[in-house]
Amino acid sequence: MIVDHTRFLTDLHKLREFGAAGVGKGVVRPAYSDADIAARQWLAGRMREAGLTPQFDPVGNLFGLASGPSLLMGSHSDSQPEGGWLDGALGVIAALEVARSVDRPISVVSFQDEEGRFGVTTGSAVWSGGLSLEKADVLTDGAGVSFGQARSSMADLSQGFVDPSRFDGFIEMHIEQGPSLDASGDQIGVVTDIVGIRDMSITFEGQQNHAGTTPMHLRRDAFQALSLFNTRLNERFRNVVTPQTVWTVGRVNLHPNASSIVPGRVRFSMQWRDADADRLARMEEIIRATAQETAEQLGMSLDYGPMLGLDPVAMDPTLRRALERGAEQVAPGRWRRMPSGALHDATNVSRLMPVAMLFTPSIDGISHDFAEDTAEVDLIAGLEVLVRAVRSLSV
Amino acid sequence: MIVDHTRFLTDLHKLREFGAAGVGKGVVRPAYSDADIAARQWLAGRMREAGLTPQFDPVGNLFGLASGPSLLMGSHSDSQPEGGWLDGALGVIAALEVARSVDRPISVVSFQDEEGRFGVTTGSAVWSGGLSLEKADVLTDGAGVSFGQARSSMADLSQGFVDPSRFDGFIEMHIEQGPSLDASGDQIGVVTDIVGIRDMSITFEGQQNHAGTTPMHLRRDAFQALSLFNTRLNERFRNVVTPQTVWTVGRVNLHPNASSIVPGRVRFSMQWRDADADRLARMEEIIRATAQETAEQLGMSLDYGPMLGLDPVAMDPTLRRALERGAEQVAPGRWRRMPSGALHDATNVSRLMPVAMLFTPSIDGISHDFAEDTAEVDLIAGLEVLVRAVRSLSV
Repeated sequence: MIVDHTRFLTDLHKLREFGAAGVGKGVVRPAYSDADIAARQWLAGRMREAGLTPQFDPVGNLFGLASGPSLLMGSHSDSQPEGGWLDGALGVIAALEVARSVDRPISVVSFQDEEGRFGVTTGSAVWSGGLSLEKADVLTDGAGVSFGQARSSMADLSQGFVDPSRFDGFIEMHIEQGPSLDASGDQIGVVTDIVGIRDMSITFEGQQNHAGTTPMHLRRDAFQALSLFNTRLNERFRNVVTPQTVWTVGRVNLHPNASSIVPGRVRFSMQWRDADADRLARMEEIIRATAQETAEQLGMSLDYGPMLGLDPVAMDPTLRRALERGAEQVAPGRWRRMPSGALHDATNVSRLMPVAMLFTPSIDGISHDFAEDTAEVDLIAGLEVLVRAVRSLSV
Repeated sequence: MIVDHTRFLTDLHKLREFGAAGVGKGVVRPAYSDADIAARQWLAGRMREAGLTPQFDPVGNLFGLASGPSLLMGSHSDSQPEGGWLDGALGVIAALEVARSVDRPISVVSFQDEEGRFGVTTGSAVWSGGLSLEKADVLTDGAGVSFGQARSSMADLSQGFVDPSRFDGFIEMHIEQGPSLDASGDQIGVVTDIVGIRDMSITFEGQQNHAGTTPMHLRRDAFQALSLFNTRLNERFRNVVTPQTVWTVGRVNLHPNASSIVPGRVRFSMQWRDADADRLARMEEIIRATAQETAEQLGMSLDYGPMLGLDPVAMDPTLRRALERGAEQVAPGRWRRMPSGALHDATNVSRLMPVAMLFTPSIDGISHDFAEDTAEVDLIAGLEVLVRAVRSLSV
């Protein structure tokens, strides 16, 4: 069986015709859209042609099953509302080509709603048991449609959930969605860990006042509390973080948000990510201590929303070493080990079996945008690494 | 003629029945609302009873004219959407009582839309020539209603604009709307200056990015630019400002304002107030230099909205000294000179004639709120200061 680069690229371009945006190579293929369902039906046909047995599950995850125990490979084929052609699609089509090209049994998967129209990596979260169907069904999208309603549009295709015990591991290839490989000129990234995430909202409440008649020393200005908190936090994180650690204040809601009123309340998001659970916990301590100190100093009350947390996931050493061997053969000296700063379906699947991930470069680090792209020579390099890694694994 | 405290307080409480909120003494009487128009018609009747000739002008300002040259006194009777009973109303009813109680001719005014449903101190701005009727007519409120439409609801009452040359000065009594008098225990504030205001929006634009995959050193985070700008500005203002200077970042709009996205753009309001025009200009220099330096350091583009500016207005020395003499008689040792941090109709009227202002305390500094209040003994003290000041002025 021979790896067919042309067949691989042809399928990848065929997939982007479903929901083609008409802007560059961009796609509009959100979970459960007509384009998404049509794409999955086309994929099911390609799986059947590859000798796999397609099976939709009750949430729209599509598996192409090899007979007997197998290695699972894939990613997702839904897209962002304004998405790129490779985000998810690359991993699914590459898995299909590997299944067609190697001797050992490979099953293929396209998870549903990885892009979070409803939750976060919703399809793989349900399949892996991380999210109950009951809780998932009441999640709603921005327009108020529930997950339960949306998945009912694919109900006639469902043949029930696939038993995870038939798989002995999961490998996902994905575009990096960041600038690191593009900047360093590397062709391949072998993922060491998927970083953990902590995300919570913080509220400072002071005193809303007239911006003309309230002297500075009598103000309890919520924006000033946020600014002071942020400045101190940046200083205090310095001795704790690594170059891979990230933290973000991405959402700020000031009340009443008027130029002539001293703001009485601010609610903002605080998110931090790292591959080390201990560091995530240490950062949380610093965040809470800094917020507390700032609130006391400026006479604010302080309130925290619920903390959302996903623990870091280390890649399976055996699968990862197989990918590293493949990378060294395909791109000697032009690959690197790296954490994944983004979440992926592999995070969920790690609850069930050993997982590993491979990255290809994102040109200029752009993703979640019609302009997302990767040189085709790099896509082929990624496919070749997968093939060699799988061939090198003892069954 | 005798000052009648009971008549004064009774009229003040009568006025708050128009648009009574049913919450404490609060009122809902925005410009051109049914309650506002009914209140003005009642006021016109009270003016007539006091021997004055009521005249509505084309924008709904209501004058009660003494015959011949006179001193003008008053304020406004429209309220905030959730307003207090004294904001504006106090100055109008006090003026009416002074007109009833002194020998010299006093005219009374209630300006329209001081609270800025459409603009800022709209009625007095048009009357004083600071805002053309043409420009005013296209201003819209939050619901999209134009000033032109709104004022047409009072068109049948209009008898044309009042000639300002018939007045030789303007005195406005108002609640302080700030905490200074309440905190110091003073009963009366004689205003020295109405502070000037500068207000502009500033935009930092960096690069929107994935909050997981974008390393800190490659980010161009608009929120971090705002925070750094604010921190530096606070430091740099220290050597320039006085205890009366105020500055406020009251409005912050972050884009796209999502917890998992490095914010690419922030537009925020920067407002500063001071009684010294030179200091206002010096602060503007510091703001622009600090924004420029922050933008360069963090790789942001920088853009300024149009700057709105109102120059400081010094009170007329003769009128002010009369108020000071009255204050020393009524509240010896319990009055003070102070700037007004809030805008008032007197700012506009100062284009036409000498103006002066008097403040009474606001309990806990609260205003623009149903809870706004002042002890009635302080209201009477303010009335008495006005009466003595007017009596002491040579005609």
